[in-house]
Amino acid sequence: MSLLTVGSVAFDAIETPFGKTDKIIGGAGTYISISSSFFKKPVNVVAVVGDDFPEEYIKTLENQGVNTDGLQVKEGEKTFFWAGKYHNDMNSRDTLVTELNVLEHFDPVVPANYQDAQYVMLGNLSPQVQSTVIERLENRPKLVVMDTMNFWMDIAWDDLMKTISMVDVLSVNDEEARQLSKEYSLRKAAKKIMAMGPKYLIIKKGEHGALLFHEDKIFSAPALPLEEVFDPTGAGDTFAGGFIGYLAKTDDISFDNMKKAVIYGSAMASFCVEKFGTERLLEMTEADLEARVKEFEELTVF
Amino acid sequence: MSLLTVGSVAFDAIETPFGKTDKIIGGAGTYISISSSFFKKPVNVVAVVGDDFPEEYIKTLENQGVNTDGLQVKEGEKTFFWAGKYHNDMNSRDTLVTELNVLEHFDPVVPANYQDAQYVMLGNLSPQVQSTVIERLENRPKLVVMDTMNFWMDIAWDDLMKTISMVDVLSVNDEEARQLSKEYSLRKAAKKIMAMGPKYLIIKKGEHGALLFHEDKIFSAPALPLEEVFDPTGAGDTFAGGFIGYLAKTDDISFDNMKKAVIYGSAMASFCVEKFGTERLLEMTEADLEARVKEFEELTVF
Repeated sequence: MSLLTVGSVAFDAIETPFGKTDKIIGGAGTYISISSSFFKKPVNVVAVVGDDFPEEYIKTLENQGVNTDGLQVKEGEKTFFWAGKYHNDMNSRDTLVTELNVLEHFDPVVPANYQDAQYVMLGNLSPQVQSTVIERLENRPKLVVMDTMNFWMDIAWDDLMKTISMVDVLSVNDEEARQLSKEYSLRKAAKKIMAMGPKYLIIKKGEHGALLFHEDKIFSAPALPLEEVFDPTGAGDTFAGGFIGYLAKTDDISFDNMKKAVIYGSAMASFCVEKFGTERLLEMTEADLEARVKEFEELTVF
Repeated sequence: MSLLTVGSVAFDAIETPFGKTDKIIGGAGTYISISSSFFKKPVNVVAVVGDDFPEEYIKTLENQGVNTDGLQVKEGEKTFFWAGKYHNDMNSRDTLVTELNVLEHFDPVVPANYQDAQYVMLGNLSPQVQSTVIERLENRPKLVVMDTMNFWMDIAWDDLMKTISMVDVLSVNDEEARQLSKEYSLRKAAKKIMAMGPKYLIIKKGEHGALLFHEDKIFSAPALPLEEVFDPTGAGDTFAGGFIGYLAKTDDISFDNMKKAVIYGSAMASFCVEKFGTERLLEMTEADLEARVKEFEELTVF
């Protein structure tokens, strides 16, 4: 029942009202891997970095139980770099720098020892790269989850439609669900998007939680109201990592278990935003997680 | 255990992407009264209209179990009138007309047969009128709930602070909670607002549900994802009416029962938006309500 994740492993430079960082480890693949490693080890990661990527960062991933056999290190090339600045409300941000670097011609390699993948998380990347990963698996995994963004809706619609049609669960935010479906009502949007292929749809709503759709069923997960959001970077990816990690660990893809996976993903995301970058995820414990999940229960039981 | 509500009884003219109405019955007091009458009769209403207000509309309220002894009809004056137009997303609207008319010098009268009020819902009105109603009750009710709006924060801060300090539960939306507390985090905002007097705070988040705060406890109620929102007018007031009505019916103001009251209020609001004005509220049945509350349960249980 092995777990495969693909996504960017990158440098981020983050500025929030609380401070700023130099180049730190970031990227969807990083957050997904660290988050899912809480539930299932190893996490077999497919990604690419340049030769400027510190060995120490790779060690950080490996110490969490991430298998980096599928992490290509490109000699003479530079790692993907993103810099952003959050506004005071922490709900919106400006992108200051995007240097694709090694991501521009990323040709994902799936090592032989990843071929038993049963649970696959396709982090936000070009839909063409995402579909290539599926195509390079000899057997269809039990569950393929895909995260994507408005960016690909704007510039790679046909590739996106193809990849969406190949996956079991799609994860987008509310604005992206509306853009993808051309429907304002999320319930109508969900119907249209599930007709594109995915049997399940997750709509992330940030501080308002998340919705899980399947056939005529809906689950609404709250977000924990936090005293302070310190740095939202990676929260969506951390959510995705917790979601796939919980499913891989329990090996149960019923709707009822997916609800739990959404809660575990939400709990992981609530830690992520408490410090800069991956810092809080790397120090949190399983006891922290279970206590947080209990808070989610208390928040919703009536 | 009688129930008293105060709020505007008014004419509304509403335009949405689905159509428009002539002057129809509206106003916070109307929605609160109709909604709470589902749970507890009579609803003793305190309000004022002009002599242009049709007898037929007063009959509509009375047929629902609303006691109109406290509804003043001002000869030679005109009823409060609001006209608004919703944008395509139904989440924002332009106010086209606001004619205060009888509301400008509203001096609320509390009839003798209302003096046993145990549950009081102060609908959105000038905070000075709201506090006058409390002051005109000989005994302190068991529970006083207050709804207000950003408008009063802008023009009547001192009156607002006074009235807020007199109530048990305050109900505002998320933007208003932020304006009132000068805090962006709703958890921090809630702490500050409860320090102003109310032991309980409800933060309404529209399509994202509602939060109930008390001491260190939080309850997060989802909103039902609807296929179509036809007309959002009165949804917040209908929520408030369901909330106070459920509490008055069950006569239990524990935090656990307030959670249920928030769900019943949310369920009532979900009907309100399905047709223009009060139309859906006037035709719905108790069986409809119980089925809807069950949908809320299914939405959140994990």
